[in-house]
Amino acid sequence: MADNNQDKTMDKIVSLAKRRGFIFQSSEIYGGLSSAWDYGPMGVELKNRIQRFWWREMTQLHDNIVGLDAAIMMHPRVWEASGHVENFHDPMVDCKNCKNRFRADHIDLDAGCPVCGVSGQFTEPREFNLMFKTNMGPIHDENSVVYLRPETAQGIYVNYKNVVQTSRVKIPFGIAQVGKAFRNEIVTKNFIFRTCEFEQMEMQFFVKPGDDETWFEYWMKKRMAYYEKIGIRMENLHFHQHGPDELAHYAKDAYDIEYKFPFGWKELEGIHNRTDFDLSRHSEYSKKDLTYLDEETRERFLPYIVETSAGLTRSLLMVLCDAYEEEQVGEGDVRTVLRFHPELAPITVGVFPLVKKDGLAELAKEIEMELREDYATFYDQSGAIGRRYRRQDEIGTPFCVTIDYQTKDDNTVTLRFRDSMEQIRVSRSELSALIRSHIKSYKRVSS
Amino acid sequence: MADNNQDKTMDKIVSLAKRRGFIFQSSEIYGGLSSAWDYGPMGVELKNRIQRFWWREMTQLHDNIVGLDAAIMMHPRVWEASGHVENFHDPMVDCKNCKNRFRADHIDLDAGCPVCGVSGQFTEPREFNLMFKTNMGPIHDENSVVYLRPETAQGIYVNYKNVVQTSRVKIPFGIAQVGKAFRNEIVTKNFIFRTCEFEQMEMQFFVKPGDDETWFEYWMKKRMAYYEKIGIRMENLHFHQHGPDELAHYAKDAYDIEYKFPFGWKELEGIHNRTDFDLSRHSEYSKKDLTYLDEETRERFLPYIVETSAGLTRSLLMVLCDAYEEEQVGEGDVRTVLRFHPELAPITVGVFPLVKKDGLAELAKEIEMELREDYATFYDQSGAIGRRYRRQDEIGTPFCVTIDYQTKDDNTVTLRFRDSMEQIRVSRSELSALIRSHIKSYKRVSS
Repeated sequence: MADNNQDKTMDKIVSLAKRRGFIFQSSEIYGGLSSAWDYGPMGVELKNRIQRFWWREMTQLHDNIVGLDAAIMMHPRVWEASGHVENFHDPMVDCKNCKNRFRADHIDLDAGCPVCGVSGQFTEPREFNLMFKTNMGPIHDENSVVYLRPETAQGIYVNYKNVVQTSRVKIPFGIAQVGKAFRNEIVTKNFIFRTCEFEQMEMQFFVKPGDDETWFEYWMKKRMAYYEKIGIRMENLHFHQHGPDELAHYAKDAYDIEYKFPFGWKELEGIHNRTDFDLSRHSEYSKKDLTYLDEETRERFLPYIVETSAGLTRSLLMVLCDAYEEEQVGEGDVRTVLRFHPELAPITVGVFPLVKKDGLAELAKEIEMELREDYATFYDQSGAIGRRYRRQDEIGTPFCVTIDYQTKDDNTVTLRFRDSMEQIRVSRSELSALIRSHIKSYKRVSS
Repeated sequence: MADNNQDKTMDKIVSLAKRRGFIFQSSEIYGGLSSAWDYGPMGVELKNRIQRFWWREMTQLHDNIVGLDAAIMMHPRVWEASGHVENFHDPMVDCKNCKNRFRADHIDLDAGCPVCGVSGQFTEPREFNLMFKTNMGPIHDENSVVYLRPETAQGIYVNYKNVVQTSRVKIPFGIAQVGKAFRNEIVTKNFIFRTCEFEQMEMQFFVKPGDDETWFEYWMKKRMAYYEKIGIRMENLHFHQHGPDELAHYAKDAYDIEYKFPFGWKELEGIHNRTDFDLSRHSEYSKKDLTYLDEETRERFLPYIVETSAGLTRSLLMVLCDAYEEEQVGEGDVRTVLRFHPELAPITVGVFPLVKKDGLAELAKEIEMELREDYATFYDQSGAIGRRYRRQDEIGTPFCVTIDYQTKDDNTVTLRFRDSMEQIRVSRSELSALIRSHIKSYKRVSS
């Protein structure tokens, strides 16, 4: 999939992410931990903003969707009911000579061991479960095993009855959740794309059987529209329908929203018609009645579930890749700019005094104090003003405000826009409202 | 500590938390998982708002503090350097007769076993480490052990150099982080107060040695003022200084902020002068130079760290307890009300049509759509209006808006305040701004 140019783009993004405090290798001073990443000052703000945008869109701005936050450690029976204990595994073989272990479907079993080269020494393939196991309580035996959840969805299913009983929701309704999940992936790759520890943003929508296909279509449209709303270029997104061979055992129909990453088209979000598979399994395993009573029709049924399951950490990578541009801005001059939607940008407004002296620094600080009630600000007084703008371009700051000598005379400042690099003169008293209106009416402009 | 009355208060809070969708027992349909809790629709909103308030206060409104979000799984050497592998344990004994395990400091070793009654059958006490262990990768042996972090602080220490190099921060500066931590506590108790899985809100402030005591005092004041800002009654908070016997091995000075829970005064937040203990340990174990270069004085030193470490889930319990009131509002009439700070309330505005018919429901829906761009709203059209107000009181909604026949004539609505139960007539066009100004000027009024 990836050609040289695409590799280069990915290298540049990884490098920028490190250099500007978006993403660090976890435990780097100890040589790192395989495929684990930490989010730096810019990364955590970007991640929080993506999460908040999704959450607001799903709960605050949509009728009949409420939130939930279930624990990472759940009762082990949950994972029997869900099918994860039985089905969530990869086939592994050991080399009896060198004791290394490999995924059976990733190597040629008739050939020599990739590590020691000796052939004919592989064990029979054995199934290796991808759930992380630990023990709760003082005694470590089979009875104290708990798993780190491999997906957040089950936390919603086991709480669905609690939500119905306490929240006055009526079908059709949804439950939204953002949280961490863990999979002991043997092959992790593509930076933060596939990692053992990751975050999901899931919404499970409970509907009457028979209405499921209509709602499935509704959510396909709605979720694609969401990506346009957060400023992603639509030519980089498409649907991929699961064929009969790809469909999970629980799904009646499934579409992935895929994004064109520098390393190829990859899944960003899954929209699945899960039927009543999950609730019927939990009903069977827990011996609890999980049916829903429609109070108007007096009908009782097990709801069908339409799921929209997006990766938060994956979304962050997408937003970074999609925002990244190198723009020719003059002869031999190229600027690197992250064209984040202003609602997602880690810093909303950079505030600079033209020079430190003559009270301009103090005045700029004062203006920063006013702005930071409403916006994430960054004060910078060092270096040429052009360099300061470029530094903000590189972390995607949509607005910069410069305080100069004229500000002392007439209380106006320079407002500079990231995308167009246009600069306008604005009165200090109108600054905050003007920034607000620009955020609300934002449309992406590429070079 | 707790008398009967206090027990009753706690019972009522636990019951309200379940009934109104704040907190559910985890995996309840499977009989629950020991001391694990899930946050329902109201609980997750309350938790998110506490977290956002803290985060905004620490990062957006404070100079020179940036955020971070480190992974839960870190390199195992981190926990050797931190002292957790060596020191983070409880002494345990087994009963050789019934095979049960107990904390040695919680039972009388000279007496009979609390389970089987047989005496003289205890093993020698052995140290039991409180970190959850799991294995990363396909081979489960000592080399693949990773721990779930028992605290979030270490994620900040190992990234401190990355932050300095990428974020233009200069000492004194801080790094803030919110995230989950895990401790295999044998004795969990008091609802969500002590649980195996919990969330911390930590800020580590890096200062020049010698300036540490000044900053320690600064943060003590600042953190106490924060609790007043989020509406906690100051008579329920105090400082507790660690005596020589309580001081952790890494601390030069330590104060807890304690809250008067129904079950007694308990730690909510710790403010610690950790000196250069952590950075010197990580420097020693990683063999990396973690000194800081002061560019103005050209001095090079290992920073001292002043830590403010608060529990997020504990804060949520405090906010619930502190907000809970039963108020006599008429002869024989008692209302239950949660007096949350409006910025923390899960729902900001309840919107009700007086009756469903005559187009009032449609009009109320329209007004809800206008409001929900800015606020979390809840639309309710069922039951007497007085009951609808009381339902919102019970989840702490500070404002309710009622649409009646007059609204159709003159575009005014009734705005009802949770705390005073006062009702005023407001023009629809001024509603949102009026709510905003009431939120900004909020002062707690108790019954």
